[in-house]
Amino acid sequence: MKTGRLEAFSDGVLAIIITIMVLELKPPHDTSIESILEILPIFLSYLVSFIYVGIYWNNHHHLFQITEKVNGRILWANLHLLFWLSLIPFTTTWIGENHFTSLPVALYGFILFMSGIAFNILAKSIAGHHGIGTKVHQLTSWGLKEKGSLIIYLLGILLAFINPYIGILCYIAVAVIWFIPSKKFEKHSTEK
Amino acid sequence: MKTGRLEAFSDGVLAIIITIMVLELKPPHDTSIESILEILPIFLSYLVSFIYVGIYWNNHHHLFQITEKVNGRILWANLHLLFWLSLIPFTTTWIGENHFTSLPVALYGFILFMSGIAFNILAKSIAGHHGIGTKVHQLTSWGLKEKGSLIIYLLGILLAFINPYIGILCYIAVAVIWFIPSKKFEKHSTEK
Amino acid sequence: MKTGRLEAFSDGVLAIIITIMVLELKPPHDTSIESILEILPIFLSYLVSFIYVGIYWNNHHHLFQITEKVNGRILWANLHLLFWLSLIPFTTTWIGENHFTSLPVALYGFILFMSGIAFNILAKSIAGHHGIGTKVHQLTSWGLKEKGSLIIYLLGILLAFINPYIGILCYIAVAVIWFIPSKKFEKHSTEK
Amino acid sequence: MKTGRLEAFSDGVLAIIITIMVLELKPPHDTSIESILEILPIFLSYLVSFIYVGIYWNNHHHLFQITEKVNGRILWANLHLLFWLSLIPFTTTWIGENHFTSLPVALYGFILFMSGIAFNILAKSIAGHHGIGTKVHQLTSWGLKEKGSLIIYLLGILLAFINPYIGILCYIAVAVIWFIPSKKFEKHSTEK
Repeated sequence: MKTGRLEAFSDGVLAIIITIMVLELKPPHDTSIESILEILPIFLSYLVSFIYVGIYWNNHHHLFQITEKVNGRILWANLHLLFWLSLIPFTTTWIGENHFTSLPVALYGFILFMSGIAFNILAKSIAGHHGIGTKVHQLTSWGLKEKGSLIIYLLGILLAFINPYIGILCYIAVAVIWFIPSKKFEKHSTEK
Repeated sequence: MKTGRLEAFSDGVLAIIITIMVLELKPPHDTSIESILEILPIFLSYLVSFIYVGIYWNNHHHLFQITEKVNGRILWANLHLLFWLSLIPFTTTWIGENHFTSLPVALYGFILFMSGIAFNILAKSIAGHHGIGTKVHQLTSWGLKEKGSLIIYLLGILLAFINPYIGILCYIAVAVIWFIPSKKFEKHSTEK
Repeated sequence: MKTGRLEAFSDGVLAIIITIMVLELKPPHDTSIESILEILPIFLSYLVSFIYVGIYWNNHHHLFQITEKVNGRILWANLHLLFWLSLIPFTTTWIGENHFTSLPVALYGFILFMSGIAFNILAKSIAGHHGIGTKVHQLTSWGLKEKGSLIIYLLGILLAFINPYIGILCYIAVAVIWFIPSKKFEKHSTEK
Repeated sequence: MKTGRLEAFSDGVLAIIITIMVLELKPPHDTSIESILEILPIFLSYLVSFIYVGIYWNNHHHLFQITEKVNGRILWANLHLLFWLSLIPFTTTWIGENHFTSLPVALYGFILFMSGIAFNILAKSIAGHHGIGTKVHQLTSWGLKEKGSLIIYLLGILLAFINPYIGILCYIAVAVIWFIPSKKFEKHSTEK
């Protein structure tokens, strides 16, 4: 099976996830400077989540740039990833409304951790479908970056109970690592 | 007519259906463990519905993998399917908010039953348009799986009035049956 | 310019319009039969609007099946159509919440009337871009069906102030006329 | 990398932005003429924003009509543009609910100003990727129209504190300038 519809459907879901968060940015009822400052934490959590969904879209785009074919297993691995990502708006709002308290920040980290796992499962399924020894198999091998991110997420979840802001810092650290997608994908897709 | 736009439109509608349900997952107002446990039934009904819409997207994808052309009748058969699926978020929320009581669970079963019927009508319309004797016609013939599912839905609706959880179990049973799309579609599309 | 992106964007907007209406279908707070019957008018107005947006998507699909190229003018004519269609959820909810009273029903008719006008402007822009004498120009000529619909809408708006249900009947009459898209488009696109 | 998925994702996000604003158009609770007139400011701000998002979609369409390839940098420049555009519904509602007062109108201008900057960054990234001397590089050079718009936005933000309606007039002035996308893009894409 071709990758076209899987990409289109994922684009749709990711586009909705990234934009429905803004629906939770309810404008304040009066028009004072103070009232707009009050929704600043909600805005900041929107910003972080926007970047995170952006990173996932970017890496998803790069991953499917090298994918040539899909099967039923890959379709479900992809839906599994979308499921965890679809929970980001929920935790984003919870964090924003409670001004960065421990439990919401820890849950946010858990969702990010599960999304990271789901992305790796998706990459492995694609590698498995293309076969050992293929270029795709090599490119999707689990490296330091993948393992490191998951460990930092776990650290962030634990540290959130000491100080939520340290948890957030951990998540931002992972975002920085993944902000620039691996050049290896781009290079490979140019070679083709 | 080509299938491209029908697929794109369906992907859009299904992407929205699968993600708007998460809008009903309102974060609790405080940040205690109890408050998050309270929304667990809403979360569980979200999970079941996510899997159901995922199954429909998956099977829709497989069905149109073998479809070569569409006509006005198929466009409407497809819209008819989307109509019933669009009611899933409504019943999902109703179930979640009322902690799995009889009437919402029975209505959920009815929506799933009608979606099943609608999917079969769609498959038949496609078969009819491609003509008797074609591969498409054979692949979309109504088998044991299709008939069995509809009967289990009806059972689930009735049993929901005795115990809503038995109703839910029936729906999960059908989901398990359909979780893996027929290999026959995949095989045929590879042969092409 | 190619028609691809205009179609994709329109599919996106129409998919959202057709599904956000279901967000207004708020599940009742208890689980009695009466409570579900109470939201019946909202459900019925959802059903009518779903069919209407379905008809527009269907005819839009048929129209662009024969369109070979677009220009800036056509992009705006299309956005103009989407603008009026985007107001359908608003009036749908207003009708449903007020159990089919005069003003909401008349406003609904006005939105449908303007959508009809907008569709004709779009068809004319496409005809103009392809040139007099072309097949596209002939197929988009303003016939009895187009004129009749607009007159029935106007009648419906006026009659809504006497009895809202007669207004609704007028709109349903137009829906019946347009339910089956002109065969001429399908025939032409097959000939190509 | 090809432009296909970037366009599809942007279409999805823009389609959602343009339609979720209508979700804020809550129908009045009674059915009097007065009640519908009361939501007129919300409707007007919806109309202006619809046109603005339409303009951006139109120009985005024209820009990618001439773009042949993308890289990681362009993906992020595009997400940066979508981020600012995604804030339009928020300020639109804030303006509408407060009947065009100073602070919301100034913030609206700021969002438009940042969107304008983001569009230019995107155009520059594309130009840079295609290389100096290429047709794309020439077509995306920063002209009078681009500079003038940003200055008028700044003027509008300042004047909003004297009279919000003058601010709105400034934004409408820029919309008029950009309503018709540069013919140069269309001409170039025809030549290809």
